[in-house]
Amino acid sequence: MPSPDKQTFLITGGAGFIGSNLADRLLALGHSVVAYDNFSTGQREFVADATKHPEYRLIEGDLLDRASLTSALDGVDFVFHLAANADIRGGLDNPYRDLEQNTIATFNVLEAMREQGVSRIAFASSAAALGEPSVFPTPEDCAVPIQTSLYGASKMACEGMISAYCEGFGFEGYVFRFVSLLGPRYPHGHVIDFVKKLRADPSRLEILGDGTQQKSYLHISDCIAAMLGVVEKQTALDSKHRVEIYHLGYPEYITVSTSVKWICQRLELDPVLDYQGGNRGWVGDNPFVFLDVSKMRETGWEPEFTIREAIIATVDWLIANPWLLERR
Amino acid sequence: MPSPDKQTFLITGGAGFIGSNLADRLLALGHSVVAYDNFSTGQREFVADATKHPEYRLIEGDLLDRASLTSALDGVDFVFHLAANADIRGGLDNPYRDLEQNTIATFNVLEAMREQGVSRIAFASSAAALGEPSVFPTPEDCAVPIQTSLYGASKMACEGMISAYCEGFGFEGYVFRFVSLLGPRYPHGHVIDFVKKLRADPSRLEILGDGTQQKSYLHISDCIAAMLGVVEKQTALDSKHRVEIYHLGYPEYITVSTSVKWICQRLELDPVLDYQGGNRGWVGDNPFVFLDVSKMRETGWEPEFTIREAIIATVDWLIANPWLLERR
Repeated sequence: MPSPDKQTFLITGGAGFIGSNLADRLLALGHSVVAYDNFSTGQREFVADATKHPEYRLIEGDLLDRASLTSALDGVDFVFHLAANADIRGGLDNPYRDLEQNTIATFNVLEAMREQGVSRIAFASSAAALGEPSVFPTPEDCAVPIQTSLYGASKMACEGMISAYCEGFGFEGYVFRFVSLLGPRYPHGHVIDFVKKLRADPSRLEILGDGTQQKSYLHISDCIAAMLGVVEKQTALDSKHRVEIYHLGYPEYITVSTSVKWICQRLELDPVLDYQGGNRGWVGDNPFVFLDVSKMRETGWEPEFTIREAIIATVDWLIANPWLLERR
Repeated sequence: MPSPDKQTFLITGGAGFIGSNLADRLLALGHSVVAYDNFSTGQREFVADATKHPEYRLIEGDLLDRASLTSALDGVDFVFHLAANADIRGGLDNPYRDLEQNTIATFNVLEAMREQGVSRIAFASSAAALGEPSVFPTPEDCAVPIQTSLYGASKMACEGMISAYCEGFGFEGYVFRFVSLLGPRYPHGHVIDFVKKLRADPSRLEILGDGTQQKSYLHISDCIAAMLGVVEKQTALDSKHRVEIYHLGYPEYITVSTSVKWICQRLELDPVLDYQGGNRGWVGDNPFVFLDVSKMRETGWEPEFTIREAIIATVDWLIANPWLLERR
């Protein structure tokens, strides 16, 4: 017999890095999960265990297919909207992608929810939605950003629509702006790039930028604990506009050079470091990402993994799962 | 022979309130104008004079028709992107409209510009993009807003894309967040609503909200002078991300009740005032709009019309142009 607290969660991007870890956690807590994914970047291996669970249902669908999405939301209590184009660098090659896969897709999620009478949503936003802030650590109510990437602009566009649905349609919303996440199933970013390059050539490592970029990182399990804690407390119901925004990161930051050092140490390699120069990895890269997480900590949450532990856990997982390194 | 400073401006929404006034002003200054409008809310009467000018070209087209838009941009030096769905209240009846006509349409403008090698743009944003700020007068770098309307959310989405194009593609961008504008050709808002109602029944006036909403207003000619002054100075070229944001309003505000009083005085009417109650006119209405315009004033700009003068000018123009009152 289900417990009275058992709920059904739909996760967009349910086969992705965050989504698959979240699904496993929700199942372990006794909930039902509907994972919705188009497998553009999701991985079958990430959901292999979950698919054996009786309370798990995997729907292969696209967020641009509104009928499929609406049908998937039947009987759902809460939506974790995590699916997105996460290729920040690719924005300039294909500007439509962030608009379509982030902004328009999020509109579809909101409309499908409204059609099904589902009104509770959590959204994976990003520190990138804040452009290049001038205050560090950066609080939730920092200055209106000047967007520097189409990805960041689209994430802020999604935040705005979600907030307007909370105000206008009585939705209950949670927006989480993440720093880069690390840990098991980590599929893209600098750690996997460096591990891949070092597997190809252990003697030399090409590094975009000059290594001075400063960034904070968070372990995926700390991220999930934070999101679930806030959603369970329903903090948005006490908020003026029925939406609450939280910054999620670790309360420290490191340089890319430090990250490289820890990765090489873990791999027991001593390559020549070939810095490409410039204080940005690419156009739109933010040279300093450090979020103020005190609002999140005031809810009782504390991260368990340091940045160093998170990086090492990521390297270890990648080495234990070479299939992901060999993709593409 | 054209002067060396003569430029060709494309105005989206060129047959609208702001666009048609801007076109007239640019023609008077010796520039060429391409007005692009789908006449969904634009008015043929607004462009009747301009169409007689040899340097004016009117293109009837939709921003969702990328091919037509791209073709219209051939030979253009600068784009004033003013076209938008401006029906804030209707957002909840048709949530797709703000996404399509504001966010997606703006993306089309940016992409069409890129295809034609046009990189200078000014954008009509809105105080509504700031949700309900907590600081008054509200400066450009106020706190990241919680959006309270789909219209405001879409305007911020547009600002973000424009900024990202400035950063990523070297565009030169000017974003103007307006308070409500008044003056000749004013087509929608509380002044026209009240004048229409009083023409139908001079003895009684129904007023949404309780009359305490506080708002600032700006005369259209002061708005145009501000925009042209900044664009001419090319202030965005000195800015870190090649985009500059300006708040545009009058440095005072009035209540709706005061506005009603001035309108009735001008019409020489003394109706029973029937307040509907509540501190908002509708869901998503912002009860206090008062922008800090000191950044704009630092460029040397000063408004010429007080709010009272702007309201009276609007009433006078509406009475002299009853055809607009009789539309719809």
